[in-house]
Amino acid sequence: MKKLFFLLVMLTNGMLIYAQSPWEKDFTKPEATEIDEPKPKIVTPGTNGAPPSDAIVLFNGENLDSWIMSKDNSSCRWTLKDGSMTIKSGAGDIQTRQKFGDCQLHLEFKIPVNAKNSANRNNAGNSGVFLQERYEVQIFNSYQNETPLYANGQMGSIYKQVIPMANAASKTGEWNTFDIYYTQPQFRSNGTVEKPAYVTLVHNGVLVLNHFEIQGSIEYIGIPYYKPHGKAAIRLQEHGSEISFRNIWIREL
Amino acid sequence: MKKLFFLLVMLTNGMLIYAQSPWEKDFTKPEATEIDEPKPKIVTPGTNGAPPSDAIVLFNGENLDSWIMSKDNSSCRWTLKDGSMTIKSGAGDIQTRQKFGDCQLHLEFKIPVNAKNSANRNNAGNSGVFLQERYEVQIFNSYQNETPLYANGQMGSIYKQVIPMANAASKTGEWNTFDIYYTQPQFRSNGTVEKPAYVTLVHNGVLVLNHFEIQGSIEYIGIPYYKPHGKAAIRLQEHGSEISFRNIWIREL
Amino acid sequence: MKKLFFLLVMLTNGMLIYAQSPWEKDFTKPEATEIDEPKPKIVTPGTNGAPPSDAIVLFNGENLDSWIMSKDNSSCRWTLKDGSMTIKSGAGDIQTRQKFGDCQLHLEFKIPVNAKNSANRNNAGNSGVFLQERYEVQIFNSYQNETPLYANGQMGSIYKQVIPMANAASKTGEWNTFDIYYTQPQFRSNGTVEKPAYVTLVHNGVLVLNHFEIQGSIEYIGIPYYKPHGKAAIRLQEHGSEISFRNIWIREL
Amino acid sequence: MKKLFFLLVMLTNGMLIYAQSPWEKDFTKPEATEIDEPKPKIVTPGTNGAPPSDAIVLFNGENLDSWIMSKDNSSCRWTLKDGSMTIKSGAGDIQTRQKFGDCQLHLEFKIPVNAKNSANRNNAGNSGVFLQERYEVQIFNSYQNETPLYANGQMGSIYKQVIPMANAASKTGEWNTFDIYYTQPQFRSNGTVEKPAYVTLVHNGVLVLNHFEIQGSIEYIGIPYYKPHGKAAIRLQEHGSEISFRNIWIREL
Repeated sequence: MKKLFFLLVMLTNGMLIYAQSPWEKDFTKPEATEIDEPKPKIVTPGTNGAPPSDAIVLFNGENLDSWIMSKDNSSCRWTLKDGSMTIKSGAGDIQTRQKFGDCQLHLEFKIPVNAKNSANRNNAGNSGVFLQERYEVQIFNSYQNETPLYANGQMGSIYKQVIPMANAASKTGEWNTFDIYYTQPQFRSNGTVEKPAYVTLVHNGVLVLNHFEIQGSIEYIGIPYYKPHGKAAIRLQEHGSEISFRNIWIREL
Repeated sequence: MKKLFFLLVMLTNGMLIYAQSPWEKDFTKPEATEIDEPKPKIVTPGTNGAPPSDAIVLFNGENLDSWIMSKDNSSCRWTLKDGSMTIKSGAGDIQTRQKFGDCQLHLEFKIPVNAKNSANRNNAGNSGVFLQERYEVQIFNSYQNETPLYANGQMGSIYKQVIPMANAASKTGEWNTFDIYYTQPQFRSNGTVEKPAYVTLVHNGVLVLNHFEIQGSIEYIGIPYYKPHGKAAIRLQEHGSEISFRNIWIREL
Repeated sequence: MKKLFFLLVMLTNGMLIYAQSPWEKDFTKPEATEIDEPKPKIVTPGTNGAPPSDAIVLFNGENLDSWIMSKDNSSCRWTLKDGSMTIKSGAGDIQTRQKFGDCQLHLEFKIPVNAKNSANRNNAGNSGVFLQERYEVQIFNSYQNETPLYANGQMGSIYKQVIPMANAASKTGEWNTFDIYYTQPQFRSNGTVEKPAYVTLVHNGVLVLNHFEIQGSIEYIGIPYYKPHGKAAIRLQEHGSEISFRNIWIREL
Repeated sequence: MKKLFFLLVMLTNGMLIYAQSPWEKDFTKPEATEIDEPKPKIVTPGTNGAPPSDAIVLFNGENLDSWIMSKDNSSCRWTLKDGSMTIKSGAGDIQTRQKFGDCQLHLEFKIPVNAKNSANRNNAGNSGVFLQERYEVQIFNSYQNETPLYANGQMGSIYKQVIPMANAASKTGEWNTFDIYYTQPQFRSNGTVEKPAYVTLVHNGVLVLNHFEIQGSIEYIGIPYYKPHGKAAIRLQEHGSEISFRNIWIREL
């Protein structure tokens, strides 16, 4: 039923825009290249770090209601304190209740000061933002490259798929921002990928990934590959390090 | 000579990364998908609106030295006042002295309050940011759609090529920000386009163009098409309206 | 009306194939990747050089009825003799009455023996097959490279756009075959190219162009570019040389 | 060493073609779009079904020397009789000794008359041509659709990936030809696909696949996916049916 509606909208829209074939137009007139409709929707921008008017707020410092534990869908057991949400070591990953497709995601995070001296390399500020539960934008202490790690595992990488164009990491103890522009993959009826996922990442105001073609689900061992899926949650990884998060919002595109 | 050097670097780099064919690797070991080099360059992010450490500042409120008049390369004659640079009606377009290719460009602009009541539609806050002197990100008073104009000519459109995904325009008299992520086109030896230009635009923190494929030089009348070019300036359009600019910086990618 | 019908067919088809999202299927069963419909249409292949059952015969040696003069749409005035159609020098180009889009085109042609000794380079077997009246597959005496010409102007080139992968030219006085697989370009409503045209060319049984991306209309001088068009004729060029054609047929795809 | 040589050739070639940037050329002169080198290599076409001069003959009716059993690399044990090579039921698949990448492949095959009445659907002329040992162009009795099977498993399909554009199958007992134009996939260093494989298939002179994007290795059950590989053999499948082959040749591209 939904599909029927969708295609009828396409139909109407198609007739609107393609009422005239491009080769039948008179391109000596400026009107030939003017498109009146649809007017873009009005979005009131946020001021002073507030989210735009059409954003879904996922965390604003007051409660953890938008999040659940990934392993069993129970209530989020990470720590809420001083307006931030902090990983509880051993508690496991969390994810949004809501599922998303194409989106603009904003979040802020802080790696604890002691992370940089950790004897355990995996504790050196290790976390990650899993888009649609499977494509990881890596969080790791990479400030001044003080924690040696392979370059495609640094903060701002798509883990084991690409080296970010710049290392714009904040010091441990200071806040980072991620602004993520994400396009979900599309699948054929036989389960193969028709169009891969893409991600653009602006880290602390610095472009570090520009329309990167995601190569499949993140794999610690082995070759990334795609499995078909629909809309899915934003997942935050718990990997032993007590990273804090704040000001998380998302816009559906 | 430069090309020789460039290709020799590719050669070395190629041998480094492709020392082993992917089908000769043991993908049961995590090391198979770790890449150690090159470490991404360290960029110190700006705080409180300041540019990142590797940005070229094009305008910081103090002088107009980075800009020249487009028509004759003479000194920029727009108005410098109160830390902003304002269009002088009739003076003509300006452009950067320096030429750029792929880039991240930040700029802020303000449409004057009286623009919205202009009897002359072209005076309703009309200006534009021409990437590489030819691909226009449109500036126009579009707040709440109070100035009726075709949708692919609104603020945040690539003029006459695409409707922005949202109208995030500030009120006249208030500042807007554009964060632009731009990839330049590539041309074949016979002058045709090998790869088109792409642009992502974040307007006031709202994604309005996501990796849009630019279709050629902006044309008021006729079909956009590409003509080969190399690096080129950022041009700001004078179109009668006294728009102000501030805090302009660019990062070469 | 036609468009309406087309989209309703898409609608039906879409519901059929996408009745189930790929992520809802059980891919442990072989049925998950079996598609029953639509059965491909039955085409009876030709034997001994005859065209397949669904081909439109454009020339079979008996008459010139499918062709008209390009300049004025008058009856074809090339020479019909001994089952072949031969260029009349000075008469001008000819083209099919019917217009075509995506197609498979077969034709055979023979460059006269004296062409190779022509003092006039342009008379050295110069002709061409213009797909959709604008994209030229070049005909020229290139046997053993005996007529020196730039490589992207040899027989089997897309004129001034690409060098064929092989020179499979027959001797002057002997027949050549071209088997052409062509995909027409698609245009946006503002007249720009959405998808370029592609051509695969098998010359005398030898693959010489494999899904080559056509870069625009053929230009002797200047940069090729696209102008929007719909279905269009197959044009054969008259360029002074008395080339003969036979066994021309086309399948609409 | 090979790589070094390869890149040095690129270097030379690069300097030749890109000696001048396209925007530095004078496109008002016809010379600007003429490319003199490299001259395409001369290939003498075959006459009367003979292979072109640069083809590697894989089977010409005289011996089975180019083929080995896929399971153990032992000598080919299919039946050589009357100038054709016929599947021995139960013997297993065969493949070429030599490995190939991009190629043009010609082969002819005949499904036995009794195949169409087989009670066992899998015996109804079931075989296949595996490009690079993994991407199957399907052979099956599909004449007049007399053996019902899912459409993406018919003769000329890429098995379980695509329905051919036409059913051009010959009657059982009569010869078919396949002319295959194949581009191999390319892989990244982390094992993911950089560029997929493509195939064009002309069946009995009728285009049935036009630059189809292969979606991964053929799977009877499950989702096709890619695993990295280099050059690989042409494999012919034994699936119980006694199909005959003749006149097999290949050109490396």
